[in-house]
Amino acid sequence: MGETTIGVSSISWQKKVFLDEFAKVKVNKFNSRGFNTSFHECLKPVMFVARCASLIPVKGTLCSVEDLEYRTLSYRMFYAAVITIAMLMMSVLSLMKVINQQLAYEKLITLLYYTLLFGACLHFIRMAQQWPGLMTKWSRVERSLQPCEHLCNKIPTKRKIYLLVAAMTIMTLIDEFLSIISGINKGKSCIGIWNSVERYFKQSFPQIFSFVPYHEVTAALAQIFQLYSTFIWNFIDLFIMAVSIGLSSLLRQFNARLRLVDGKIMPITFWSQQKRDYDMLCDLVETIDHALARITVQAFFSNLYYICVQLLNSVNNMVTWTYSLYFWFSLSYLIVRTLGICWFGAEIHTESKKPARILRRIPTDGWNIEAERFLELINNKCVALTGNGYFSITRPFLLSFTGTIVTYELVLMQFNENGTLDSPSSDPCA
Amino acid sequence: MGETTIGVSSISWQKKVFLDEFAKVKVNKFNSRGFNTSFHECLKPVMFVARCASLIPVKGTLCSVEDLEYRTLSYRMFYAAVITIAMLMMSVLSLMKVINQQLAYEKLITLLYYTLLFGACLHFIRMAQQWPGLMTKWSRVERSLQPCEHLCNKIPTKRKIYLLVAAMTIMTLIDEFLSIISGINKGKSCIGIWNSVERYFKQSFPQIFSFVPYHEVTAALAQIFQLYSTFIWNFIDLFIMAVSIGLSSLLRQFNARLRLVDGKIMPITFWSQQKRDYDMLCDLVETIDHALARITVQAFFSNLYYICVQLLNSVNNMVTWTYSLYFWFSLSYLIVRTLGICWFGAEIHTESKKPARILRRIPTDGWNIEAERFLELINNKCVALTGNGYFSITRPFLLSFTGTIVTYELVLMQFNENGTLDSPSSDPCA
Amino acid sequence: MGETTIGVSSISWQKKVFLDEFAKVKVNKFNSRGFNTSFHECLKPVMFVARCASLIPVKGTLCSVEDLEYRTLSYRMFYAAVITIAMLMMSVLSLMKVINQQLAYEKLITLLYYTLLFGACLHFIRMAQQWPGLMTKWSRVERSLQPCEHLCNKIPTKRKIYLLVAAMTIMTLIDEFLSIISGINKGKSCIGIWNSVERYFKQSFPQIFSFVPYHEVTAALAQIFQLYSTFIWNFIDLFIMAVSIGLSSLLRQFNARLRLVDGKIMPITFWSQQKRDYDMLCDLVETIDHALARITVQAFFSNLYYICVQLLNSVNNMVTWTYSLYFWFSLSYLIVRTLGICWFGAEIHTESKKPARILRRIPTDGWNIEAERFLELINNKCVALTGNGYFSITRPFLLSFTGTIVTYELVLMQFNENGTLDSPSSDPCA
Amino acid sequence: MGETTIGVSSISWQKKVFLDEFAKVKVNKFNSRGFNTSFHECLKPVMFVARCASLIPVKGTLCSVEDLEYRTLSYRMFYAAVITIAMLMMSVLSLMKVINQQLAYEKLITLLYYTLLFGACLHFIRMAQQWPGLMTKWSRVERSLQPCEHLCNKIPTKRKIYLLVAAMTIMTLIDEFLSIISGINKGKSCIGIWNSVERYFKQSFPQIFSFVPYHEVTAALAQIFQLYSTFIWNFIDLFIMAVSIGLSSLLRQFNARLRLVDGKIMPITFWSQQKRDYDMLCDLVETIDHALARITVQAFFSNLYYICVQLLNSVNNMVTWTYSLYFWFSLSYLIVRTLGICWFGAEIHTESKKPARILRRIPTDGWNIEAERFLELINNKCVALTGNGYFSITRPFLLSFTGTIVTYELVLMQFNENGTLDSPSSDPCA
Repeated sequence: MGETTIGVSSISWQKKVFLDEFAKVKVNKFNSRGFNTSFHECLKPVMFVARCASLIPVKGTLCSVEDLEYRTLSYRMFYAAVITIAMLMMSVLSLMKVINQQLAYEKLITLLYYTLLFGACLHFIRMAQQWPGLMTKWSRVERSLQPCEHLCNKIPTKRKIYLLVAAMTIMTLIDEFLSIISGINKGKSCIGIWNSVERYFKQSFPQIFSFVPYHEVTAALAQIFQLYSTFIWNFIDLFIMAVSIGLSSLLRQFNARLRLVDGKIMPITFWSQQKRDYDMLCDLVETIDHALARITVQAFFSNLYYICVQLLNSVNNMVTWTYSLYFWFSLSYLIVRTLGICWFGAEIHTESKKPARILRRIPTDGWNIEAERFLELINNKCVALTGNGYFSITRPFLLSFTGTIVTYELVLMQFNENGTLDSPSSDPCA
Repeated sequence: MGETTIGVSSISWQKKVFLDEFAKVKVNKFNSRGFNTSFHECLKPVMFVARCASLIPVKGTLCSVEDLEYRTLSYRMFYAAVITIAMLMMSVLSLMKVINQQLAYEKLITLLYYTLLFGACLHFIRMAQQWPGLMTKWSRVERSLQPCEHLCNKIPTKRKIYLLVAAMTIMTLIDEFLSIISGINKGKSCIGIWNSVERYFKQSFPQIFSFVPYHEVTAALAQIFQLYSTFIWNFIDLFIMAVSIGLSSLLRQFNARLRLVDGKIMPITFWSQQKRDYDMLCDLVETIDHALARITVQAFFSNLYYICVQLLNSVNNMVTWTYSLYFWFSLSYLIVRTLGICWFGAEIHTESKKPARILRRIPTDGWNIEAERFLELINNKCVALTGNGYFSITRPFLLSFTGTIVTYELVLMQFNENGTLDSPSSDPCA
Repeated sequence: MGETTIGVSSISWQKKVFLDEFAKVKVNKFNSRGFNTSFHECLKPVMFVARCASLIPVKGTLCSVEDLEYRTLSYRMFYAAVITIAMLMMSVLSLMKVINQQLAYEKLITLLYYTLLFGACLHFIRMAQQWPGLMTKWSRVERSLQPCEHLCNKIPTKRKIYLLVAAMTIMTLIDEFLSIISGINKGKSCIGIWNSVERYFKQSFPQIFSFVPYHEVTAALAQIFQLYSTFIWNFIDLFIMAVSIGLSSLLRQFNARLRLVDGKIMPITFWSQQKRDYDMLCDLVETIDHALARITVQAFFSNLYYICVQLLNSVNNMVTWTYSLYFWFSLSYLIVRTLGICWFGAEIHTESKKPARILRRIPTDGWNIEAERFLELINNKCVALTGNGYFSITRPFLLSFTGTIVTYELVLMQFNENGTLDSPSSDPCA
Repeated sequence: MGETTIGVSSISWQKKVFLDEFAKVKVNKFNSRGFNTSFHECLKPVMFVARCASLIPVKGTLCSVEDLEYRTLSYRMFYAAVITIAMLMMSVLSLMKVINQQLAYEKLITLLYYTLLFGACLHFIRMAQQWPGLMTKWSRVERSLQPCEHLCNKIPTKRKIYLLVAAMTIMTLIDEFLSIISGINKGKSCIGIWNSVERYFKQSFPQIFSFVPYHEVTAALAQIFQLYSTFIWNFIDLFIMAVSIGLSSLLRQFNARLRLVDGKIMPITFWSQQKRDYDMLCDLVETIDHALARITVQAFFSNLYYICVQLLNSVNNMVTWTYSLYFWFSLSYLIVRTLGICWFGAEIHTESKKPARILRRIPTDGWNIEAERFLELINNKCVALTGNGYFSITRPFLLSFTGTIVTYELVLMQFNENGTLDSPSSDPCA
């Protein structure tokens, strides 16, 4: 509904107002350092990981926004479907193992793990359908606003996301490596198996090799699926963080532009335009939040659940030091990831409240009805990533999330004490 | 106070404004699919269940609104009184059993169950007196607003409620069926009784047959009352959900109409009228909320209590697989129902906040004092079902309700551990 | 600062506006039923109890407001001082007993009990100094507003408070009576004492007769102080409830008057006047809240603590049925009193929010800056009794208070389990 | 940006408005009693303690604001670095001890203690860099506002802070003294050591003398570092309290000035000026809050942690009465300090909300757009010390903090029960 005309007039307006401020700044110089890159461009490393992990099966994620295309029948979709079905298969096998062992607690975790991953795969396929639309909207918003990332960000969004992807990939590989090392050590206590490779695989996938006889190919496949699952697990958190970084950067740029008119008297049309731009940003946040809703809920639920489970495990003695190392590394990494989501997510909300200050400092003569309405919008609108509306990711949320972990931990400990949960079999390969 | 004139002018106003928008839409076509049916009409399946379960003893629930009539002396009222007294009797018998067995925990649950049901019966009789007034108010609100359900609802409210009633009836029957099967199995371990029918009844109603000698007629009556109690139990949740669906549909239609003037300049009288309509809807929500207050509090309290009790029971070993099946089905169904109330209830609050967006997008020239006052109303008024003002059913409420369940569970587990609660007698018929 | 002139103009204004509405109503008729009595008058039964219990040592509480007078040197003050010192003595004796018995848990409760009562006595003496000022302010507010209690209250405040005092006095007496009966029964298990009177007293006041040899006069004095302590304990709750009833009645009357102009167009001076009246009421609530702050905090703290302690005790077996009866009656009464404070206190907040509705229904032509400012005041001001600002007594507070009880109960149970708390000596007289 | 001109015009304005009010008041008279001293001056006792404890290594803290200077290369910095490195060393030694003893719980507390202190030292060095800027800003704000502390504070800020420093220093010394006495007594149960001095030191610093042979010089150094650590620990709380007192005094003075125009009609420029002044104060609070953020979080975290740990310890039997005395004194002092931070911190928020009352009482003719904007600012801006945005220190925060302590206590008790935490070695010198 006339959104393009709004965009055009917006640019012309801001050019007129901000031109002399920006004139001295050599934008090109900053572009060379990676500032003011479009978000689609910034997201490429994330999308590369997604492509490797078979998630978000959209064509053109590494090209320009216009090339984005979702096709139900495509080789990417086939790839995604294969991994999704693999996860489903793993879930079913885990379920069978659980029933077989009369609701053994340890196996229940494995079941939930694969079920959640299966759900995540489905969510990402669903989101792939919306992805071209979402990115088109995002880039339209970006184009209709004067870029000034170099004025407010110390590190360009592009580099930030790149570093995040690099760090998380390395951490995930270390995590996986430690898991394998620990698994090999753990396998040594398997009863009646002498081949150390077989021992490792049987210990890692008891849900498979209880039903299927051991075979090298099956084992290799299982190990590959296991690798995929670890990457998908990490990718959920990575994706939410990257999107949060992008959104908060947009809001931060909006604030930086607004700060140029701090204390100045501007015409009513200026504030009307700024309100529109802000509303556009709110709308973008809301659209993205709606698209991410299920993934966010799942990310918080699974992180909450696994932190609780691991804290509970910390009570048990760790037999080998490799397992101990793996355990603490893995738990720390999980907590850091969860804090990361909270931190980057809360930035969106924090930035969205900042224009209020500028509006309150408008001189008496420059105050008008549009400025008032803009201020009302900022005061009463909660701009934040939300878990489907059930919770908003703001700064105080971090504390209440910690409190939730503690309370749920108490319940798990009570169940544990009652002897309901704690039934680790002595043979890790069983 | 002149409410009918308001209604008339409202219709004329909206006809003028919305006519060209609605002109192309063939309303009749949609009516055939069940859209834009009056809520009284939509509620008929619910009222049919209520009539069967002896609740809401009002004449004319299956006819038109004008025919609704409450009489203290009527056969419906007699029917309701019989069931209410039956529930009271069951409560008294349970109380006697509790005192007899020195506060046995298992029997306390039965006592609370029947006491709550007795309370629910009284609440529904009380509400029956207000029902004709409530429905008259509702249909007056409906008539004064231009119906446009086909523009905003995918599934018509009528069908939604119909499906809900069907699903819940089936689920309740399955639940009851599993309960009987499990009871028959459980009865096998009764000591010294060989007749399997007698065994089943003695095991199901120890509170009766401890005081009264076993007789087929008594047993049949008890079984019938038990069936009633299960239906009443489910009906409370069903009723709250159905009313929530109706209220949120009204608000959604209001939003759909308002969206037609998004970004347009409208006269001050238009916004004044919209404010009045919105206020009328708020008033309807408040009236309904007030009438439902005690039932809502009871629904949440009893669901909270039973989820806690059942979670606690999940720790104990399940002797027979029929009991295990019944237990997990029953618990899942209870949780789904509770989530359902939260979900449908929260919709009201979510929809009530949506007009703010349209108001904030009014162009500068179209902004006026009535729009400002309308926005103030939306921002500061909490339109939601509340449990007598103690809590509001909104999205974040779901999480805090979950947190409450967890905390209370902890207390129950502590009591259980201390050996205060856990005294199941070995003989289920005792 | 010109408050009396405000008062006068207020009356003249309201007379002009409301005269025709009120003209038909025969106020005298309602006065005969107890409506529209001044709060000082209504509070007389409470003040009578206070005088008996030696609390609020102010002269003239049973005469008119002008006769209220606080003197540091007066026989009332002497009476108050005697009881305060008695409570202090009991605290010191309990402390000695606690140290003597190496922090025995059961005696700790007695210590806290008397210490809190000693604190309460001091608080009430402190408040007595402010009382004449408070009541003068209150009656000035009452006089400056047109009384219309008969329009909004079903039961006159006077009768309400009278009934409350009567009910609580009777309940306290029953509580005390059951306590004595239970004490006599409990004394039977004292070792080596044959006189049943001596047994009773030694069992009731082990903190005294461990240090002082048994004597009838000492015993009688101790019993009298014990009776005082029970009455003071109950009076705290009674006092908060009575004041809450008075404040919410004032606000309800304000709302009733305002409802008369619902939907009418009133001049700006009218709304300015109403805002002033409302502000005056807010100021009264704040002043009273400030004066009551410490008493409110103490009331909630001690009720919270005793409910927790008693719930914990409910786990232990009750030896005699007299103790069991006393225990459950006492606990129920305690819970009812706490609910009572929450309920009557929350009324203030609920009533204070109601004028918003009338303001939002003002027609467009009647809307003006003073109405807007009035609405802002209602929206943003929290008018409620608060516990020194730490919590506000509103409807949702009830639930969070319940949650707090549950959480603290958990800690007590944990301590209890660890064997830290539970050391009841086998000899109740030791 | 023209801040000095604002300051000047502010003074002239306020002189014009408030002159006749203030004329009669002899400011000099009050200055002699310590009122209206600059905050930098008031803070001198705190800064003296800081200098002794090697914290905030800034030159000129005891001279005037202009003399404040931070140099990376200075003897103060060297002093700070020495203590910081000592704390780091103690942390490393504690870590080694922990690893050596397989995660002994008791030693973990020591590790965390020194690690937190090391962090605190770093935070204070970091803050030292910002300190000259902060104090310059503060004194600029002070100078631009008419001082009127004598109108609103009973005790001058200067004396308040002086008393606080004196009280806390004395309490810290008593705490330290009791700790040493208790340590000497505790050392008696060391196995195989006969020299009582050696015994004391070995018992106090097992983390050192497990790796290093006992030597008098080492012991003396360790004791000195221990003394430093206690002072730093207390200084964190002291510093936050002192800054809170300063900020709330500034806001209280602003309110006192504003109260002079209560009910008067003032020109729009007056309100514009007041809004600017208030915004300046908000900005100061925000700047200070930002600078203190990490220290505040650390203070609350460490106090929370230590209260939990000590409450848990209270369950264990205390062997000696010296230890018992030390324990209860230390715990009480810790709780009092935490309450102190909450209390003084919450004052800022409470005072910041008070101007609203004056604004709402402006007569109709005196109401203007700037007053409206000022009121909006007060209503929607949260002026308070925050823990990096995660929590705001307001009155209700105290209760939620207490709730958090209770919940975390529960988890610790559970871990304790599971035997994970409780492994105190029988030999205190090991």
